[in-house]
Amino acid sequence: MSVKIGLLGFGTVASGIPFLLQENGEKITAAAHNELEIAKVLVKDEEEKNRLLAAGHDYHFVTNIDDIVNDPDIQIVVELMGRIEPAKTFILKALNGGKHVVSANKDLIAVHGPEIIATAKQNGLAFYYEAAVAGGIPILRTLANSLTADKVTRILGVLNGTSNFMLTKMVQEGWTYEDALKTAQELGYAESDPTNDVEGIDAAYKAVILSQFGFGMTISFDDVKHQGISNITPDDVAVAQEMGYVIKLVGDVKETESGISAEVSPTFLPQTHPLASVNGVMNAVYVESIGIGQSMYYGPGAGQKPTAVSVTADIVRIARRLTDGTIGKEFNEVSRETKLANPDDVLSHYYFAINTPDKKGQILRLAEIFSVEDISFEQILQTKANGTSARVVIITHNMSQTQLEAVKSRLAQEADFQVVNTFKVLGE
Amino acid sequence: MSVKIGLLGFGTVASGIPFLLQENGEKITAAAHNELEIAKVLVKDEEEKNRLLAAGHDYHFVTNIDDIVNDPDIQIVVELMGRIEPAKTFILKALNGGKHVVSANKDLIAVHGPEIIATAKQNGLAFYYEAAVAGGIPILRTLANSLTADKVTRILGVLNGTSNFMLTKMVQEGWTYEDALKTAQELGYAESDPTNDVEGIDAAYKAVILSQFGFGMTISFDDVKHQGISNITPDDVAVAQEMGYVIKLVGDVKETESGISAEVSPTFLPQTHPLASVNGVMNAVYVESIGIGQSMYYGPGAGQKPTAVSVTADIVRIARRLTDGTIGKEFNEVSRETKLANPDDVLSHYYFAINTPDKKGQILRLAEIFSVEDISFEQILQTKANGTSARVVIITHNMSQTQLEAVKSRLAQEADFQVVNTFKVLGE
Repeated sequence: MSVKIGLLGFGTVASGIPFLLQENGEKITAAAHNELEIAKVLVKDEEEKNRLLAAGHDYHFVTNIDDIVNDPDIQIVVELMGRIEPAKTFILKALNGGKHVVSANKDLIAVHGPEIIATAKQNGLAFYYEAAVAGGIPILRTLANSLTADKVTRILGVLNGTSNFMLTKMVQEGWTYEDALKTAQELGYAESDPTNDVEGIDAAYKAVILSQFGFGMTISFDDVKHQGISNITPDDVAVAQEMGYVIKLVGDVKETESGISAEVSPTFLPQTHPLASVNGVMNAVYVESIGIGQSMYYGPGAGQKPTAVSVTADIVRIARRLTDGTIGKEFNEVSRETKLANPDDVLSHYYFAINTPDKKGQILRLAEIFSVEDISFEQILQTKANGTSARVVIITHNMSQTQLEAVKSRLAQEADFQVVNTFKVLGE
Repeated sequence: MSVKIGLLGFGTVASGIPFLLQENGEKITAAAHNELEIAKVLVKDEEEKNRLLAAGHDYHFVTNIDDIVNDPDIQIVVELMGRIEPAKTFILKALNGGKHVVSANKDLIAVHGPEIIATAKQNGLAFYYEAAVAGGIPILRTLANSLTADKVTRILGVLNGTSNFMLTKMVQEGWTYEDALKTAQELGYAESDPTNDVEGIDAAYKAVILSQFGFGMTISFDDVKHQGISNITPDDVAVAQEMGYVIKLVGDVKETESGISAEVSPTFLPQTHPLASVNGVMNAVYVESIGIGQSMYYGPGAGQKPTAVSVTADIVRIARRLTDGTIGKEFNEVSRETKLANPDDVLSHYYFAINTPDKKGQILRLAEIFSVEDISFEQILQTKANGTSARVVIITHNMSQTQLEAVKSRLAQEADFQVVNTFKVLGE
């Protein structure tokens, strides 16, 4: 028996699936208990269809989603179009038409996941999306299955390959942000509009999904504070190194007494932290839990073949469940009431880089301002002074997000102090 | 409904299971679709039973395996005794008595796995053992499920926490092997007879199991060449560092043209390799595959709670399958004809440390000897010379195990050359 698949989109990732079916077909068939067959492929228009046919792609290309949704032989629809629309409409059509769905679309799942998941559930259908977080790293299924007996307390992740590639160059080669971006664009790692990657938006989508699998809580994209890497200066990078840290763009989801906190921000990681050596376009998810303690899952966050492996694992799982008669299980079964953390409870060490006129008494004045907000210093360093202005770098003891906002607004009122950057610092 | 469990043994790991059931019971019950209940616990004798009762452990302790095997209410037997006997007899009794079995016993599974797995299969029962390899790292289930669509080409692992702790101290602090062993024993990481840990035997057991999950091939323990860490000298450590490497005890399972090769040996890893920063008692499994490319799974290799998480995940899976009516699926479903690699096909770079009298022409003579076996040098370094003797260090280009044996036996015939150590070197 063969399980017939309808592919939506035939871009980079989609064309990795035939590669796997060809190179590894025997193992896939054995695992699925079925042959997998790509029955139809939806493309945008006749022009794309003709181009793909001319290039020798031997599939049944269609240009109307109904040709797939109304085909009774197709059991699984695989959405690899990306973006919100028309992907959302097509997925809902497929689910309402009785098809199981696999997707790698993190934007869509982070924003409209609850609606799609509810639709799948109502129809007793599977909706799986392992590839939506950290492409080739099987983190969602691992959280759902293997960590089922554990209680996750924090997830830290290097979740965006583009920004990690850029930061790696900035740290290891001393490049500026602008140089790193230019090269990332030349290499095809960054798009011409790199906003989603460099401003932490892409990583924030993934943090939303990780919060569901790690904590059973459905937060919305707007609940994830995100700060990008475009303000990081060579000075920040150098100071971090001097103090024993590496700067990475880190997604951080953790449970506090009052609820869950999720944010994406440039973070000083101790050089000995396992995430600190995750370099280039690689991703990693670091999990803290009461049972295992610390574990990390490392691999490529994107790319044709890695993403295709995750997508195909989802397809295999559905095919297998069809045989076993256990289809319809939710991808993530852990669900609790969603509570957002009170900013008073979200604690961290912070790095402050502050410009100030190079005159006497400024450090004392700074210490007074921080002291009013009950923030104490762990390290303080005057890094540059040229007679007219000085750069002061502070690493604080643990302080809350509330204290952070308070001290920043206090500093904003002081003409003598210009806060250049504030970044989170992970304690040892 | 509750699923009743019989525990065999109540040592460190076993007592971690009640911790998880208490701290995380709601999530575990939801995942298992059943309450899990430890119905009986087998201990050695009345003395142990009385000691545990006196210590406040409130379980139904029994001293005869038949009290568990013949109890019709018990569905799952969890073996946490370790060693081969009586664990093997008890597991087979349990399977023949209709119980599903979970075990964390790597020695037993590596040596008698095929017999136990066959017995489980005949009886339509589950036999799961996630905790047998790298304790808290969910590597077996990940290979079986998430990498199902991928083709693994090589698995490299830091698989023994004790030896990795010792090597970390030797590398980072310059300790001798003897100092590192003494501290490991004082901290309880090494047993008074450390042979299994330091000679690579424990890691070789894990390599046997990884070869089944990664490659579908059932090799025997004797097929795994193993070399331990006790011969590593401070000189080796220093030279490695100078050349940009870190020495780790690495399990290496790979598929060559002629078949599978598995070995455990001290290995020079490039400092930038993800395994190179796996320090202390932590373990990691690094997987090379045609789809994902490179991925790594990092976490504690042992310990009460991490191991209990893996054991409990197995129990949950069985309980869930009982509800779903899909029990009996083999833990690892991938199986191919086992072929061992021809040593001609097992290639690696190698490090040679050679003592030789400090006189003219010795390097030339060495070059001649290696050349006869068609081995060329990548780097050569004379590290110490005191007028009477010199230490020559060579890193070769790729060469086969056959060439390695041939050149070693050639060198053994030369009075002027004493081979102090040969270790594998991982290329960039």
